[in-house]
Amino acid sequence: MTPYANMTPAELRQEHEAVSQAFAAVKEKHLKLDMSRGKPGKAQLDLVSGILTVLSDPADCLDGGLDTRNYGELAGLASCRKLFAELLGVKPEEVFAGGNASLNLMYDVISKAFTHGLLHSPRPWSQEKTVKFLCPSPGYDRHFKVTESFGMELITIPMTGAGPDMDAVEAAVQDPAVKGIWCVPKYSNPQGIIYSDETIDRLAALKPAAPDFTIMWDNAYCIHEFDGGFVPFRDILTLCREAGNPDMVYEFASTSKVTLPGAGVAVFATSEANMAYMKKLLSIQVISYDKVNQLRHVRYLRDKAHTLELMQQHAAILKPKFDAVADALEREIRPLGIGSWARPKGGYFISYDAMPGTAKRALALCKEAGVVMTGAGATFPYGVDPDDSNIRIAPSLPPVAELEQAIEVFCICVRLAALEKLMQ
Amino acid sequence: MTPYANMTPAELRQEHEAVSQAFAAVKEKHLKLDMSRGKPGKAQLDLVSGILTVLSDPADCLDGGLDTRNYGELAGLASCRKLFAELLGVKPEEVFAGGNASLNLMYDVISKAFTHGLLHSPRPWSQEKTVKFLCPSPGYDRHFKVTESFGMELITIPMTGAGPDMDAVEAAVQDPAVKGIWCVPKYSNPQGIIYSDETIDRLAALKPAAPDFTIMWDNAYCIHEFDGGFVPFRDILTLCREAGNPDMVYEFASTSKVTLPGAGVAVFATSEANMAYMKKLLSIQVISYDKVNQLRHVRYLRDKAHTLELMQQHAAILKPKFDAVADALEREIRPLGIGSWARPKGGYFISYDAMPGTAKRALALCKEAGVVMTGAGATFPYGVDPDDSNIRIAPSLPPVAELEQAIEVFCICVRLAALEKLMQ
Repeated sequence: MTPYANMTPAELRQEHEAVSQAFAAVKEKHLKLDMSRGKPGKAQLDLVSGILTVLSDPADCLDGGLDTRNYGELAGLASCRKLFAELLGVKPEEVFAGGNASLNLMYDVISKAFTHGLLHSPRPWSQEKTVKFLCPSPGYDRHFKVTESFGMELITIPMTGAGPDMDAVEAAVQDPAVKGIWCVPKYSNPQGIIYSDETIDRLAALKPAAPDFTIMWDNAYCIHEFDGGFVPFRDILTLCREAGNPDMVYEFASTSKVTLPGAGVAVFATSEANMAYMKKLLSIQVISYDKVNQLRHVRYLRDKAHTLELMQQHAAILKPKFDAVADALEREIRPLGIGSWARPKGGYFISYDAMPGTAKRALALCKEAGVVMTGAGATFPYGVDPDDSNIRIAPSLPPVAELEQAIEVFCICVRLAALEKLMQ
Repeated sequence: MTPYANMTPAELRQEHEAVSQAFAAVKEKHLKLDMSRGKPGKAQLDLVSGILTVLSDPADCLDGGLDTRNYGELAGLASCRKLFAELLGVKPEEVFAGGNASLNLMYDVISKAFTHGLLHSPRPWSQEKTVKFLCPSPGYDRHFKVTESFGMELITIPMTGAGPDMDAVEAAVQDPAVKGIWCVPKYSNPQGIIYSDETIDRLAALKPAAPDFTIMWDNAYCIHEFDGGFVPFRDILTLCREAGNPDMVYEFASTSKVTLPGAGVAVFATSEANMAYMKKLLSIQVISYDKVNQLRHVRYLRDKAHTLELMQQHAAILKPKFDAVADALEREIRPLGIGSWARPKGGYFISYDAMPGTAKRALALCKEAGVVMTGAGATFPYGVDPDDSNIRIAPSLPPVAELEQAIEVFCICVRLAALEKLMQ
């Protein structure tokens, strides 16, 4: 195959003709396929459904003398805090075990910063003229939307292969209106990048002008390898403390992609000073979270070693799916020189950079052919990708056979969009 | 027994001597009893623990083709919305089924009013100079604290035997800074009052100056009779709609005292216009709530008739507890003329009005004797009871034998506090 850039106009026309026919053919199949969201597939749900029956009678619900079936324990069940402390490499007292959604805990932190301020805030953020938030991009659309919904100004920080561009971050935090940064430090969403030690050290050692600058450390994929064994990660709480910034970080994690999505347990981890402050605010909002479900997780996951074994079983289901996507891209797109991507070893996404100016068109074509993808631009602040290039591929939900069809459609669509662009 | 008011100084001294001795004697028992919170007791938790096993394998988790084990359905499982619609007498589309805590949903509404405004808000409440909120008192401390935590000015509205003093409410809502009112319309916390039809009609027909005035209708005890059968209640959504105030109310309910407290399902019900507005805001905060637990509730509770049968089983456990308290008060306090209370037929509390100026002292004595009660003043805004009189008794948690001890201590303490006051 000739790279499109090297094709003559006649060759481009010929290729366009061929790809248009392929597109018409797949449209005829009336597919209905979904690669839009990082949802686990049915095999993963079945894998973990043993969690439904780990608590089956009243005696099972006792945890060290505490009856989990009644109100109480705002910060979560002690055994659950201990389990997550082991998983995250922090202390149990630094863990707050909440409800089913880490996104909700992140929202709570930002919302309380807005209405009440954080521990070191001179005033609630609602009383600041301008609040800016750093958004390493491509990144997670739901992160950006939380801060956007509070009227904050979103500042795009370029992503490098080692994490956020730290020169840009260090420059940006000189502005006292910059109050925080979104981070997915391991298998970043969507690129699957693991932040380098240097990046993490520089983040922990930031000297922001805002006294309440906060790193929103979404460790969503902390144990989510699908290719190879567990990759250890560093404890950001300790690193911040050692750098003289003990209260600068809130770390988040959940079992949404360990047990059942939407029916799992989410936590945040932070300094004990932040914990005391946040518990006071959260005590107004809720008496306690679902400790029965927390105990289900403790009994089912047991400890880190056992949880990592489970993650290897998830990996066995996920790897063929990521392989199907990456292999197809390698085969269909690489020779044409019209896109770039990396092959991650964990997380839930493959980030695809299409020929600039063609992402929206490619995804519109996908939709026409019955394949739903995350909207173009979603990985950038305000949903606007300045290059109209980045596309997030989520291979986890469809079975491999469907996925192979979906990625075939995708390849046809990005080719067609590229050809249209080149022929303009 | 002679009423204390009729005693001579010598008789008071003699009685004080006798009650002091009784107090010293109960102190010697080193009791550790809790009547502070409306927590169900162990027998109630055991009664409903069948809910732990209603979903036991993957196939059980399908609900009309939808796999509850995966993300999705922000407003909750359709079958769960339908169940609560039947319980509350509203339409399924008017129900939002959330997480485990109705308090959290109430907080979300108030917090969003503050940060984003409600449907008819001219601006977010954070941008108003003053926001006032009506607090019928005695009332629920956690309600008052939510609004207090946002810096709102809490306006005390007297409670009558028919609900909030509606003359006072109608006068108060002429002030455009008054943005809402807290209501527990059935078996009010703590007095166990059922709002009269007239009260409810006048509430629904309010013409507040604030276009975004909101009734926070916490129907916490909507099906919670412990003495006699189910007492029907009217649908506040319909009444508001018919009175030309379709978007003026958010109703709240939960299964916290139907199934497992802290592991149940909470909902709000509101107009479809409010629902659309609130779903947009909530979609930023959470992908979906725990639908597996919602489905557990649907399968376990089935429908209104079956749920009401279960509530009669709760009633059989609760009635002897409320009887033990009310009988002791009748026997020990009534003849002395030093306190007043009503005997509710549902809910979780008995409200006791001690001789003015003695509630704090009585509860300090209780604490000294090992009996924990809700703090004096808690039932009023800012935790300050102007008469230092109201005490909330929560008889649900202790077994009857313990409760009899606790209420014996309580009676001794309110007598002693009254005697001290009378002898000043």
